[in-house]
Amino acid sequence: MFEDKPQHECGVFGIYAPNEDVARLTFFGLYALQHRGQESAGIAVSNGQHMNVHKEMGLVSQVFNEDKLRPLTGHIAIGHTRYSTTGSSRLLNAQPFVVESVLGPLAVGHNGNLTNAAHLRQEILQRGVGLTSTSDSELVVQMLAGGEGRTWEEKMRVFMVRAQGAYCLTVMTRDTLFAIRDPWGLHPLCLGKIGENGWVVASETCALATIGAEVVREIAPGEIVAIDQHGPRTVSLNPAPKRATCLFEYIYFARPDSLMDEQTLHSIRVAQGRELAKEAPAPADVVIPVPDSAVPAAIGYAQQSGIPYTEGLIKNRYIGRTFIQPDDRLRKIGVQLKFNPLPDNLKGRRVVLIDDSIVRGNTSGPIVRLLREAGALEVHLRVSSPPIRHPCFLGVDMATYPELIAHRMSVPEIQDYLGVDSLAYLSMDGLVRATGRPNAGFCKGCFTGTYPMEIELSEKQAFER
Amino acid sequence: MFEDKPQHECGVFGIYAPNEDVARLTFFGLYALQHRGQESAGIAVSNGQHMNVHKEMGLVSQVFNEDKLRPLTGHIAIGHTRYSTTGSSRLLNAQPFVVESVLGPLAVGHNGNLTNAAHLRQEILQRGVGLTSTSDSELVVQMLAGGEGRTWEEKMRVFMVRAQGAYCLTVMTRDTLFAIRDPWGLHPLCLGKIGENGWVVASETCALATIGAEVVREIAPGEIVAIDQHGPRTVSLNPAPKRATCLFEYIYFARPDSLMDEQTLHSIRVAQGRELAKEAPAPADVVIPVPDSAVPAAIGYAQQSGIPYTEGLIKNRYIGRTFIQPDDRLRKIGVQLKFNPLPDNLKGRRVVLIDDSIVRGNTSGPIVRLLREAGALEVHLRVSSPPIRHPCFLGVDMATYPELIAHRMSVPEIQDYLGVDSLAYLSMDGLVRATGRPNAGFCKGCFTGTYPMEIELSEKQAFER
Amino acid sequence: MFEDKPQHECGVFGIYAPNEDVARLTFFGLYALQHRGQESAGIAVSNGQHMNVHKEMGLVSQVFNEDKLRPLTGHIAIGHTRYSTTGSSRLLNAQPFVVESVLGPLAVGHNGNLTNAAHLRQEILQRGVGLTSTSDSELVVQMLAGGEGRTWEEKMRVFMVRAQGAYCLTVMTRDTLFAIRDPWGLHPLCLGKIGENGWVVASETCALATIGAEVVREIAPGEIVAIDQHGPRTVSLNPAPKRATCLFEYIYFARPDSLMDEQTLHSIRVAQGRELAKEAPAPADVVIPVPDSAVPAAIGYAQQSGIPYTEGLIKNRYIGRTFIQPDDRLRKIGVQLKFNPLPDNLKGRRVVLIDDSIVRGNTSGPIVRLLREAGALEVHLRVSSPPIRHPCFLGVDMATYPELIAHRMSVPEIQDYLGVDSLAYLSMDGLVRATGRPNAGFCKGCFTGTYPMEIELSEKQAFER
Amino acid sequence: MFEDKPQHECGVFGIYAPNEDVARLTFFGLYALQHRGQESAGIAVSNGQHMNVHKEMGLVSQVFNEDKLRPLTGHIAIGHTRYSTTGSSRLLNAQPFVVESVLGPLAVGHNGNLTNAAHLRQEILQRGVGLTSTSDSELVVQMLAGGEGRTWEEKMRVFMVRAQGAYCLTVMTRDTLFAIRDPWGLHPLCLGKIGENGWVVASETCALATIGAEVVREIAPGEIVAIDQHGPRTVSLNPAPKRATCLFEYIYFARPDSLMDEQTLHSIRVAQGRELAKEAPAPADVVIPVPDSAVPAAIGYAQQSGIPYTEGLIKNRYIGRTFIQPDDRLRKIGVQLKFNPLPDNLKGRRVVLIDDSIVRGNTSGPIVRLLREAGALEVHLRVSSPPIRHPCFLGVDMATYPELIAHRMSVPEIQDYLGVDSLAYLSMDGLVRATGRPNAGFCKGCFTGTYPMEIELSEKQAFER
Repeated sequence: MFEDKPQHECGVFGIYAPNEDVARLTFFGLYALQHRGQESAGIAVSNGQHMNVHKEMGLVSQVFNEDKLRPLTGHIAIGHTRYSTTGSSRLLNAQPFVVESVLGPLAVGHNGNLTNAAHLRQEILQRGVGLTSTSDSELVVQMLAGGEGRTWEEKMRVFMVRAQGAYCLTVMTRDTLFAIRDPWGLHPLCLGKIGENGWVVASETCALATIGAEVVREIAPGEIVAIDQHGPRTVSLNPAPKRATCLFEYIYFARPDSLMDEQTLHSIRVAQGRELAKEAPAPADVVIPVPDSAVPAAIGYAQQSGIPYTEGLIKNRYIGRTFIQPDDRLRKIGVQLKFNPLPDNLKGRRVVLIDDSIVRGNTSGPIVRLLREAGALEVHLRVSSPPIRHPCFLGVDMATYPELIAHRMSVPEIQDYLGVDSLAYLSMDGLVRATGRPNAGFCKGCFTGTYPMEIELSEKQAFER
Repeated sequence: MFEDKPQHECGVFGIYAPNEDVARLTFFGLYALQHRGQESAGIAVSNGQHMNVHKEMGLVSQVFNEDKLRPLTGHIAIGHTRYSTTGSSRLLNAQPFVVESVLGPLAVGHNGNLTNAAHLRQEILQRGVGLTSTSDSELVVQMLAGGEGRTWEEKMRVFMVRAQGAYCLTVMTRDTLFAIRDPWGLHPLCLGKIGENGWVVASETCALATIGAEVVREIAPGEIVAIDQHGPRTVSLNPAPKRATCLFEYIYFARPDSLMDEQTLHSIRVAQGRELAKEAPAPADVVIPVPDSAVPAAIGYAQQSGIPYTEGLIKNRYIGRTFIQPDDRLRKIGVQLKFNPLPDNLKGRRVVLIDDSIVRGNTSGPIVRLLREAGALEVHLRVSSPPIRHPCFLGVDMATYPELIAHRMSVPEIQDYLGVDSLAYLSMDGLVRATGRPNAGFCKGCFTGTYPMEIELSEKQAFER
Repeated sequence: MFEDKPQHECGVFGIYAPNEDVARLTFFGLYALQHRGQESAGIAVSNGQHMNVHKEMGLVSQVFNEDKLRPLTGHIAIGHTRYSTTGSSRLLNAQPFVVESVLGPLAVGHNGNLTNAAHLRQEILQRGVGLTSTSDSELVVQMLAGGEGRTWEEKMRVFMVRAQGAYCLTVMTRDTLFAIRDPWGLHPLCLGKIGENGWVVASETCALATIGAEVVREIAPGEIVAIDQHGPRTVSLNPAPKRATCLFEYIYFARPDSLMDEQTLHSIRVAQGRELAKEAPAPADVVIPVPDSAVPAAIGYAQQSGIPYTEGLIKNRYIGRTFIQPDDRLRKIGVQLKFNPLPDNLKGRRVVLIDDSIVRGNTSGPIVRLLREAGALEVHLRVSSPPIRHPCFLGVDMATYPELIAHRMSVPEIQDYLGVDSLAYLSMDGLVRATGRPNAGFCKGCFTGTYPMEIELSEKQAFER
Repeated sequence: MFEDKPQHECGVFGIYAPNEDVARLTFFGLYALQHRGQESAGIAVSNGQHMNVHKEMGLVSQVFNEDKLRPLTGHIAIGHTRYSTTGSSRLLNAQPFVVESVLGPLAVGHNGNLTNAAHLRQEILQRGVGLTSTSDSELVVQMLAGGEGRTWEEKMRVFMVRAQGAYCLTVMTRDTLFAIRDPWGLHPLCLGKIGENGWVVASETCALATIGAEVVREIAPGEIVAIDQHGPRTVSLNPAPKRATCLFEYIYFARPDSLMDEQTLHSIRVAQGRELAKEAPAPADVVIPVPDSAVPAAIGYAQQSGIPYTEGLIKNRYIGRTFIQPDDRLRKIGVQLKFNPLPDNLKGRRVVLIDDSIVRGNTSGPIVRLLREAGALEVHLRVSSPPIRHPCFLGVDMATYPELIAHRMSVPEIQDYLGVDSLAYLSMDGLVRATGRPNAGFCKGCFTGTYPMEIELSEKQAFER
């Protein structure tokens, strides 16, 4: 509650390491990827013969204890941490999925969303498969288990021909770990090395750092990598004509200490703040972030503008899922349950408030009021991303058209609505410049409405409401 | 794990408000005090006739849901959130304690530690009471339930004559809410107003802000306040000759948005950083904090020194209690499970690393190594408090003598041990100056070994090991 | 639901056995006493220095597993299994109670009910003790912990002077196991021997048989037995002028394989059936019991009358606590959720239906209708105990005056109300004769309204409603 | 533990009743079928559009409460209660299985075992389905979801052509309830009527009686019945040339109050006892059963022989799954944890002990010793079924060849091994005569080794160990 951010889909992790306690390393890898999904967690292992899996609703640290970890012995493991909207929060959907197939056991962890899911679903049902969930990820599993091809590698290549949309997969067969990334490279997936002959795959490099693995490279868009006793090997490489990496990974999703293109996300976000300061200066005494995600951009804005950086809002670190509803009095207080102002830093000052994004616009207004009540003379809101005018069909839980404030209102209208003295968003050019890769391809769908692939009509209609 | 900080004892909360859902407000109040104790939580209510209580092991948000809250109806409530060392983590010790006594039902929430507990315990056993726990707080309850005096107020005054040490109490009888603070004012306790005729008591003002209550004043050292339909009334006031507020509340414990003497703790900690920069400048390119608690001091150090502030370490927000032990490989990695460096901000730079305190000294060394491996040229460690050379006997879980690094080593020895290019601690004068109340009295026991009252020998001996 | 029987209070168990795994033996002892209480279970052990306890809501087999049992090491143990009315089913009331007292640790398990509890409660509160529950058993503990006397044995003797009512106690101090039985011998308590130098105390002999202990003797009414390394020793013996053992132990409570006065309860109940057949013959083709408790009496009735015994009703073995309410349709079906008839044994036959007792009379009518619908020509109900006309104030959860059918109606009225062709109860003389101890003293309170001791007015009033 | 009986596979239940709370009735139906499986329970409902399911590990009464039942609204429901060997006790295997298929949602509950499972499994994997469990029942679901045929009815008929072995199925589609019974009629399945226009299907008639439904008829071997708003309709009827109903349903499985061929199982078991008395008289003073299942046969034996019936062993009603292992002392005591003797009924007497079956033979010996220690002069063991010499491949968890005592030993050898004065088993002719249907067909596989259909070699081999 009181969080106006898009939501991750999932984090994936995989390890092939004959000399390691692979389940334990997967646990700590998932721990580092916890920000990508807090609903359920799971680990599957293979010892070359049998697979074993444990998955449950909850945080990684709640799902596992030593008793749960003990039976997970083997030399290959994959792990998954899942976010989901409340409606479909069910153990049935927890990953990794493990099935027996004609080629033996198969385990899959999936991060992303298919844009031709409805079509693929019909095909799978026609093939005579009874499906137990409504998730895209079960489709991935049944496409791999039952699709055309005589070998796992053939089946995976057929899968990549047929699937449209975003997918980072870790796939474990009896004796091999696979990593698969969609042709657009929509979400990150990286390869690392651990010890003498161990290999790791993860959504973000922070998971590698956490377990002491070195970053080797990213898995390329459209690549299938197989890892076995001979190390990693590219099975096939079929990139899309133009790369289209999700810009929101740069703005908000990935952890600030993760690397994209050999820079930390922290540096990229500081650069976003600098660009924002160049594009939209503000006459102010102090720069403060909406904690925690806007801190780097605020530091960048302060550096560029010369206006001192400080904290102006404290966020309750323990705010997690609570099942207690605020009553009317508390609802009026609203964001204060989550954020409290620091009057000493605000009183009599003109404030530049930095946020990294505005989705629905329902918390910014109350935060601004909080700052004013604490004595701020002026509040100039600067957002380190462009206005979000369209939903995401590629696996990010953004919002529907009617919910998006920038779909309903112009920037001046939003400024009035939020009650700020001035409002500016970072330009698309500025955002791209801050990535340091101006010529790379990005998915800008939520800003521009132009997506890297066609979206099925049925998917689109779901977001009109 | 990998946290080298003293530990809170508890947070207390109380409310008298005929027109409010007092249990729900208590829930959100405890939510704001969660940083003062994460082991167990509880709420007791009185409707003027009967009392009802729910308490369990876990975070406030885990202990309560709407089903658990529903039966807690009434117009008075007290709540408690408890920290405890592992050994004594038991439901039996969860608070509030509720008992039937000769004067009717009684509920008590306690923050602190009695220094004459062993003596009082013997007295109570001699009186013929069978005690169910080893906690000080049960002694408080039995002293109130069975001590001399014909009325609650008399019993409380007798209690204050007999008890030595730190105690902030919220006490609920059938129809009255009491707030009691020890004569030294060791830990904070404040009074607020909510709505037309509601009154709130809490360990910190952040709990008042969170539920929309106004701060009225602090409960004075040695004060007993009674709150009923006539509002708050001072029952008695018996301050110690010299106030002795715990300096660690200023350094680390209290939430940065809480107020002490009408300043936010954030400002006070910024001032600590400024003092530190004056006393111990460092030839550096960048100031970075050990997140999260040292952020304000780092901001202050940067402001005073003119060296730019930035982030250099990212802390995993989801690190909580985990039941999975790292293996040898991971143990070597150590702090990296919790902190990851930002190489872009460190490479080729001379770093001032700000921490607010060092207790055992077991995480600072690894953090310094992390910074160096990420490319830092020099690391100058500055600590915004003096060296901790003595344990706390007044309710803070600090450490025993042999564990305290500053008890075993001189500052130059610590500098060598931690592998920093230079090391400086804030002076006691600087620390006191930063509070803005140079003439107020503070408990400096853990720095100087001089405590505001006598400590029983048995207590002292427990900390020799 | 659909059970019209009085309810037990509790089962107690104690063991002193240096060469045994005392917690494990206590577990199996409680397993055998499960019929005396299904609400909560607990075991406390002493190793001569420290005590350790585990107790929870639920059946013995649910409360304990190997992990829970492992820390319970020592050479003395007591265990408890508790029944309670729903209202007061709380972990707080689970036993054994363990407290620290002026003479060291103390653990108590209690079966029974004090008749001067209100008076004792006031005394204890006056003494300045804060009480955490509303149970009699906490009073026992605080009386032992804080009563007059310099030694445990003195305190126990003072307790027996002061307490009125029913109590079988197992008491564990640091190094001694005590067994205490009230002066009237209201409920059973027996002593057994296990192995070379082990001793056991239990509510019923079936617990001794289950763990392979030999029965030595009963604990005498008014006796305190202490057991330590020197074996059992009578500390004091203060019987009431006239013994008054609860007749319902003979009729229904104690397990049929337990021994009272060297006979099995099964034989005694067969004898009840024989007496009933003599007193109240019936013109019938078949004798059937209400399962399971009336089986022995039905066998006795069949033996005496020569009418063949068979089964006519099957009871669902898995009927336990269910949280699902029957809807209107099911409520009409009623007892059929629990009992189904065997038409082949009933059709065209005249039936003698044997029950051991009727309390409220709300299930007998529906059972009779069930038999008739299944084809029974006549139903003659014979009850192997006299009409219950009064509540029990001594620890049996019987019913209040207005609930008792035999308090409201005469036998002919009950016969009409239940719709049976004839109805007869066993006479008091017959019941006593069947015990084989015509001259022993029994508590006949629920049949006659005359109790072995005075009952406090407040207790009586509670049962008028 | 200490139970030497074959184990059920499962109980199934289905209801189509527009005017009833179908989930609640299913709950009470499963309650009556609890003896057929205690591992997991589940209920699925359809409201004509969507399906909803709840299933968990545990007894029916543990799995459901009002909160769990509330969302299960609709007019069709199926329920399942499952037994399983420990190894495969997992939530993943709990039923009903609910899947989305090309023809819409499908829910299936299955009782039985397929004898060509390995073959069918390969076919389904070849078809490209990823299977999530090792259970036969998932094969049934995927055969129905994806087998040939354009309609549900066609698919079910194809299923019956392909599947070999034992299966009673309740199948729910969006708007229809189906009941399917294998061509041999191996396990029972009956049809009932409830209210004006409600219909019920259940494994046994006791479930119908429990919810107040009338028995209409059995589902015929090889029949598919469809139930919708037009009532029940036979879709197809393909019986095997010779019926082959499991004889163990007559001996032990079905509840004594259930009807088979319009007789209660109780009567049939009494008749078994009568036949046994004719075939194998014994010179004895008293007939006692091994409780509870042998009670009817013992009554029959007593009636026929004229030797008085009584009880000689008391069974602990609360023995359920316990996680506590007996230690050496207790292991020697053995069956006494479960059964205690009644010496008064045994001392100085010659006993006929009636059991309904002996599988491994590991509890009969200790029971005999128990009787002798309690004073029995002679023990003549009579078993109301023939010797079990072969495993069951049709869904009953019997034992493997080496475990079966009658596979390893002749009757005289068993008599010696068990230490009885004489031993006799009921003959196959006597057993069949007792059913009252001498010309009906029965599966006698476990007695004769001749099964009604061919058994795959792989299945057979699994039972050689």
